[in-house]
Amino acid sequence: MHAYRSHTCAALTSANVGETVRLSGWVNRVRDHGGILFIDLRDHYGITQVLCDPDSAAFSEVEKVRSEWCIRIDGEVKARDPELVNAKLPTGEIEVFIRDIEVLGPAKELPLMVFGDQEYPEETRLKYRYLDLRREAMQENMKLRSDVVASIRKRMWDRDFREYQTPIITASSPEGARDFLVPSRLHPGKFYALPQAPQQFKQLIMVSGYDKYFQIAPCFRDEDPRADRSPTDFYQLDMEMSFVEQQDVFDTIAPVIAGVFEDFGGGRKVDAPAEWPQISYRDAALWYGTDKPDLRNPIKMQVVSEHFRGSGFAIFAKLLEQDGTEVRAIPAPTGGSRKFCDRMNAFAQKEGLPGMGYIFWREKTADAVAQELGISVKEAQAKLKSGEVEGGMEAAGPLAKNIGPERTEAIRQQLGLGLGDAAFFLGGKPKAFEGVAGKARTVIGDELGLTDTERFAFAWIVDFPIYERDDETGKIDFEHNPFSMPQGGMDALLGDPLEVKGYQYDLACNGYELVSGAIRNHRPEIMFKAFEIAGYGEDEVRKRFGGMVNAFQYGAPPHGGCAAGIDRIVMLLADASNIREVIMFPMNQRAEDLMMGAPSEPMNEQLRELRLRVLPPEN
Amino acid sequence: MHAYRSHTCAALTSANVGETVRLSGWVNRVRDHGGILFIDLRDHYGITQVLCDPDSAAFSEVEKVRSEWCIRIDGEVKARDPELVNAKLPTGEIEVFIRDIEVLGPAKELPLMVFGDQEYPEETRLKYRYLDLRREAMQENMKLRSDVVASIRKRMWDRDFREYQTPIITASSPEGARDFLVPSRLHPGKFYALPQAPQQFKQLIMVSGYDKYFQIAPCFRDEDPRADRSPTDFYQLDMEMSFVEQQDVFDTIAPVIAGVFEDFGGGRKVDAPAEWPQISYRDAALWYGTDKPDLRNPIKMQVVSEHFRGSGFAIFAKLLEQDGTEVRAIPAPTGGSRKFCDRMNAFAQKEGLPGMGYIFWREKTADAVAQELGISVKEAQAKLKSGEVEGGMEAAGPLAKNIGPERTEAIRQQLGLGLGDAAFFLGGKPKAFEGVAGKARTVIGDELGLTDTERFAFAWIVDFPIYERDDETGKIDFEHNPFSMPQGGMDALLGDPLEVKGYQYDLACNGYELVSGAIRNHRPEIMFKAFEIAGYGEDEVRKRFGGMVNAFQYGAPPHGGCAAGIDRIVMLLADASNIREVIMFPMNQRAEDLMMGAPSEPMNEQLRELRLRVLPPEN
Repeated sequence: MHAYRSHTCAALTSANVGETVRLSGWVNRVRDHGGILFIDLRDHYGITQVLCDPDSAAFSEVEKVRSEWCIRIDGEVKARDPELVNAKLPTGEIEVFIRDIEVLGPAKELPLMVFGDQEYPEETRLKYRYLDLRREAMQENMKLRSDVVASIRKRMWDRDFREYQTPIITASSPEGARDFLVPSRLHPGKFYALPQAPQQFKQLIMVSGYDKYFQIAPCFRDEDPRADRSPTDFYQLDMEMSFVEQQDVFDTIAPVIAGVFEDFGGGRKVDAPAEWPQISYRDAALWYGTDKPDLRNPIKMQVVSEHFRGSGFAIFAKLLEQDGTEVRAIPAPTGGSRKFCDRMNAFAQKEGLPGMGYIFWREKTADAVAQELGISVKEAQAKLKSGEVEGGMEAAGPLAKNIGPERTEAIRQQLGLGLGDAAFFLGGKPKAFEGVAGKARTVIGDELGLTDTERFAFAWIVDFPIYERDDETGKIDFEHNPFSMPQGGMDALLGDPLEVKGYQYDLACNGYELVSGAIRNHRPEIMFKAFEIAGYGEDEVRKRFGGMVNAFQYGAPPHGGCAAGIDRIVMLLADASNIREVIMFPMNQRAEDLMMGAPSEPMNEQLRELRLRVLPPEN
Repeated sequence: MHAYRSHTCAALTSANVGETVRLSGWVNRVRDHGGILFIDLRDHYGITQVLCDPDSAAFSEVEKVRSEWCIRIDGEVKARDPELVNAKLPTGEIEVFIRDIEVLGPAKELPLMVFGDQEYPEETRLKYRYLDLRREAMQENMKLRSDVVASIRKRMWDRDFREYQTPIITASSPEGARDFLVPSRLHPGKFYALPQAPQQFKQLIMVSGYDKYFQIAPCFRDEDPRADRSPTDFYQLDMEMSFVEQQDVFDTIAPVIAGVFEDFGGGRKVDAPAEWPQISYRDAALWYGTDKPDLRNPIKMQVVSEHFRGSGFAIFAKLLEQDGTEVRAIPAPTGGSRKFCDRMNAFAQKEGLPGMGYIFWREKTADAVAQELGISVKEAQAKLKSGEVEGGMEAAGPLAKNIGPERTEAIRQQLGLGLGDAAFFLGGKPKAFEGVAGKARTVIGDELGLTDTERFAFAWIVDFPIYERDDETGKIDFEHNPFSMPQGGMDALLGDPLEVKGYQYDLACNGYELVSGAIRNHRPEIMFKAFEIAGYGEDEVRKRFGGMVNAFQYGAPPHGGCAAGIDRIVMLLADASNIREVIMFPMNQRAEDLMMGAPSEPMNEQLRELRLRVLPPEN
């Protein structure tokens, strides 16, 4: 018999009854039922109930074991009494009577229980990660992550992509975040950098003629602490293709993403790639207040400026006299109560706006009828009840009063709302309120139950502007990736820079940016022009991106691609809210590894070899 | 039609004759035949001949293109004349008449030709790696590497292993080489390290209950320049299993390795895993002079001390009076000529030994017969010719004379040699000559054509001693990995440390170490004892390997695994002699990336954030 196991802890069924077996695993739980010891023996695959009665020669040893001891047992498989069968366990039909036991690894008192759902502070979980990782939820998350990555690889191979590894110890890459530096011992005073992404390398692979590249690539950014990202590194599915246009990239990556979500989404509905809308960056901002809209939420904002221009609602009317201002409406189907509308107004105030005006549509009240017909409320009630006066819908809320019934009705019709619905209004320069509008849209969708939580909804966001003008300095700078090909090429760059859109795109899913990519600017002359507009000379470009720019002078093919965040995808699939739930050994938010003790003070010898000195803190 | 191509450059056959097609690729070569321009258009997949005659509207544009320009052409597929069919090309039956051309990426004058076999200095190749990588041999090597890694992954998945990613920015790992350090900005004065291997993490994954782990893992070592390894990083197939013994690891990894060599070995014979011998570390040293023997070479060395003890060969006879000395023979079948023996003797001298004594067996000469029978050489020749005297075999060489015919014959019989063979002899303390003996064995095997170059021959090397005694200080220290479980466990550690063997193993293939691994020491008390013997206190162990040792206190399972060098495997399969032939963007031997300009001087701002100062060189 094998030294440690004849079966895993998930393998035994009634078919094994009568066999002598050997199992190894961890003591998930020990219970004493009338002197008989029951152990739930757990391994990576499952749980088997093993037991020992005081007559067994092994009893005195079995008595010693505690939770999370690693043990090996030999025993006989017996059928459970029918009333004791546990249908939830694959091994629930049997139990194993211990004949022999060996302690493989005893455990000290536990700082963190593996069995059960007790919550522990994150510092405890990270310090004792090897215990935390034994917990069922973490086992599932880690298996999911591994399976998702494997599935992505298979799908890319199936599409004739090959994985090529790019350097990890290299030069700075032009992603714009902060590099991690690595001092060189052979060249003291010089430093390598860990790549923020394999951007330059994957483009060089295209220039080298490899046609289709992908990599599950580690990316390194020295980030300031933030709850929803790793402060040091993350993984992305990085891909690039030659001789392609934007739609080719979509057609390639969309089935990969959709397939992964279908296979690992736990049955939640996955929109088919053919249905993924392509929404321009400007429309996304207008309709959803964000470039990563959550399309599970059906709310779509609209411009309603015309209804307020010159209206009795002086705040908006005045505002609209200024250049570049707009009033936008957030329709809120089923949100038609004053209580809800007031809560949303308060939300906007908490987010730093003066508030959100609103209108809601309700059943006409007796008060309103009384006022309208000049009769008493009591009479009005009677007429309504008898049907002599038709009730119907009325618009309520301060805005409705100010702009009057005609404009109110026109708004209602534009937004397609009706009885029981509401609409919220925000005005000003879009950049000033768009973000809050987007958040309000999300809250409204969530609170009203409009957002379908059992669905993954995707949208391509396209036509990103390449430049923006800094409002304060008036200077033109890159708004997005400077390496994207401008739509219209060189000709476009000779016109108004603020009108230039790039072949650049994101894939949004449920409010997250899952994928980001571009068709690259592979022509040195167009690249130099693009940088010139943003105020960077040719020398500067060559200095910063020399590797890539030089390569483009030797027959560069048109190429493009994208990168998809692995951690983000797994988080969505696992329904986890914290990135550390889907990373095996994450840093804490202060970028420390509490289990391994990193970072730590170096040895003097190491610093000497690198010719470095650590300076005292400045006061 | 697609913007860039209707077909790849490997797709068109006579079935496409008459079609209008669009191709994109690089100009591999342009030839002018009687005014008609022939272009070999190349992409990642193949080459298609396209041509343009002066009547074509595109001619003036086609005339401009030069080698390595990236172009798109439209044209009509025509069948080649039967006598012009190129059977070597999949597209050799057709050619495409250019109707339209677009230059996608022009190329400057090339520092390195892609077409042809011209050799370039490595610095040129690395600086213009994107051109070098377009060359056919490099395309094949990179595809091979990618396919080998993919195949390894599939094989591991098929064996129920999951890939889990371990941290790259972490604490120092206990591999004993030099770490790359990464200064922390959030914790100035503290440093992370890049992992030399995921050793501690994979063991922690086992303690975390994941049962089977693998990873294609980047490993980082700050190495001094050496031709056959990367000065910064390499990749390994890293794997670990719980509840296993040594043979389980062999049974798991051997079919993976064998399968990869079968699939990608270009038809060379691959020994089946069941035939891979398990050779103890001591036997390997004795038989092959190395712990990574090349078993394609059939030569097996033997101890022949007894034949020389008290013999007339005073050098060996005297030597053998000292403790710990031995004489070993290298049999050299078919090596029986003085010329060859003298050359090998010279080889040993070049390697720093006084020389190698030898004996060889040849047809008896007339001289020898004359001397034996006291007759003239002429008479002897006549007797030999007539058959009156039997010729047969005689032993030649200085050693044979000194030790006399009986001992010489005993040696011959022990080594199983005969007419036309030779044997070489080395004496002394084995450690002093073993290395040269191993090299001599290799040279002998190669020169005599005994080594089967069309084969991959594998052997497990086992039973590595855990400790060695430093001859000078007399101190006991670890000879190999301190984390291996000693055979015999704690009991073994209570005896003579120099007798303790570990459950530690290597896989040798064709003279290279392909795999290295161990069953780990998962019991803290045995680990502390093992370190104590080598002079390390518990505090020291906890300080250096705290993450792992702490974890072992909470129910550690028995576990073991191994790591296989990816670069080495691909080198063997590609028949490459330099690691840079199988890495896409390697550093040069001075650990510089000439293309990207790494390492480079950091910005002052970066150093300030890290609170680091670079010191001037010491004089």
